[in-house]
Amino acid sequence: MRYEELTLEGRNAVLEAYRAGKTIDRLYVQKGCQDGPVNSILREARRQDTVVSFVAKERLDQMSETGKHQGVIAHAAAYEYAEVRDILKLAEEKGEPPFILLLDNVEDPHNLGAIIRTANLAGAHGVIIPKRRAAGLTATAAKASAGALHYTPVAKVTNLCVTIEELKKQGLWFVCADMDGTVMYDLDLKGPVGLVIGNEGEGVSRLVREKCDYVAAIPMKGDIDSLNVSVAAGVMSYEIVRQRMG
Amino acid sequence: MRYEELTLEGRNAVLEAYRAGKTIDRLYVQKGCQDGPVNSILREARRQDTVVSFVAKERLDQMSETGKHQGVIAHAAAYEYAEVRDILKLAEEKGEPPFILLLDNVEDPHNLGAIIRTANLAGAHGVIIPKRRAAGLTATAAKASAGALHYTPVAKVTNLCVTIEELKKQGLWFVCADMDGTVMYDLDLKGPVGLVIGNEGEGVSRLVREKCDYVAAIPMKGDIDSLNVSVAAGVMSYEIVRQRMG
Repeated sequence: MRYEELTLEGRNAVLEAYRAGKTIDRLYVQKGCQDGPVNSILREARRQDTVVSFVAKERLDQMSETGKHQGVIAHAAAYEYAEVRDILKLAEEKGEPPFILLLDNVEDPHNLGAIIRTANLAGAHGVIIPKRRAAGLTATAAKASAGALHYTPVAKVTNLCVTIEELKKQGLWFVCADMDGTVMYDLDLKGPVGLVIGNEGEGVSRLVREKCDYVAAIPMKGDIDSLNVSVAAGVMSYEIVRQRMG
Repeated sequence: MRYEELTLEGRNAVLEAYRAGKTIDRLYVQKGCQDGPVNSILREARRQDTVVSFVAKERLDQMSETGKHQGVIAHAAAYEYAEVRDILKLAEEKGEPPFILLLDNVEDPHNLGAIIRTANLAGAHGVIIPKRRAAGLTATAAKASAGALHYTPVAKVTNLCVTIEELKKQGLWFVCADMDGTVMYDLDLKGPVGLVIGNEGEGVSRLVREKCDYVAAIPMKGDIDSLNVSVAAGVMSYEIVRQRMG
């Protein structure tokens, strides 16, 4: 397996990547740049709903490896993203009720990778991440997934709340992990389920939490605040596994 | 909290550290160096049972930050280690049957830190690591523990198998995590227990495994080989938590 971090520099390279259907995780454009080619790139970015940052030339100079960025640098995903429907299809093919992990702004690519690895082994059908403020499928995430990215589809959505609403219509219900919830062993976690895991520092955001049907707590018997986010995702996922086996 | 990586360079610095009772995780001595001060250091190292590596001068020059290593570089623990009896005492004070995590050569300090964090929150009374071939309490491990090192004692032992035998005499029984074991939900994990977690790549070593009373498996429903070691430690620890609560 090769994991290449794809940093694209220069107008042609970025525009070609868009036209070839590559997923761009993030686009950096020099402030004030508004000529024809840059506008074409911005048009493609809008179409693909890429997160665009307008930055000073100095910042681009710093990021550039080739020294020839021409005002445009893009980070392409090292892996292709799936669609939410691919995840549901996988569950259907396996004849299992859907089990999906939704990551509400997990920022560290090591954690993202470890969670995809866990998702695969816990028999989840896919992982959904938001477009903004979250780690994407970088080479680091791919490596930390230990190969799971080849099997477990990861979809990237514009708005987690909207996606949760849509999946509820498909029969899924949602549980998020938070300290003040009901002890997870006392909840019925069977059936088609979306497990929502929050950000490393702040946990699950208020809007996403309000969309969840249940809040589940991992019992905390110690002196410190919280588990590492990928450990918490593992512990919750395996409580779902246990209940589904029972 | 401050986490300093303590690298000591030069004969006086290292000898003083030993005489002040500091724990040295690892000692590097230049091949062929055998004068008085170096011999004093090696004597202290034997007394403390430090792992000593004899290396070429070039290697020391490379490792040196000050350029003045005088043939001796030592890595001191960023935190003090506890004794196994401190762990048993903590369980006794809490009036709980001992619950100890034993790490059979976990090599990545991030994993060590995350496991100490998990141990704290799962209510384990301590963590035991071997002296050789294992990550020690470096600054990286301390940071990854998210403060748990202030509460959860970590003991370092010369031989895990011997320690397991000794703890068996105190009434503990041992379970290790391995793929070909009994599904963990079917085992009775209550009572005074030592949970053995293996190395990142190779799992639990044969000798240690033979000392264990049970081999427990985390159900694997996916396509890849194994969970991240700190996730596996979390999942197993929380199965113990669940059974103890029930």
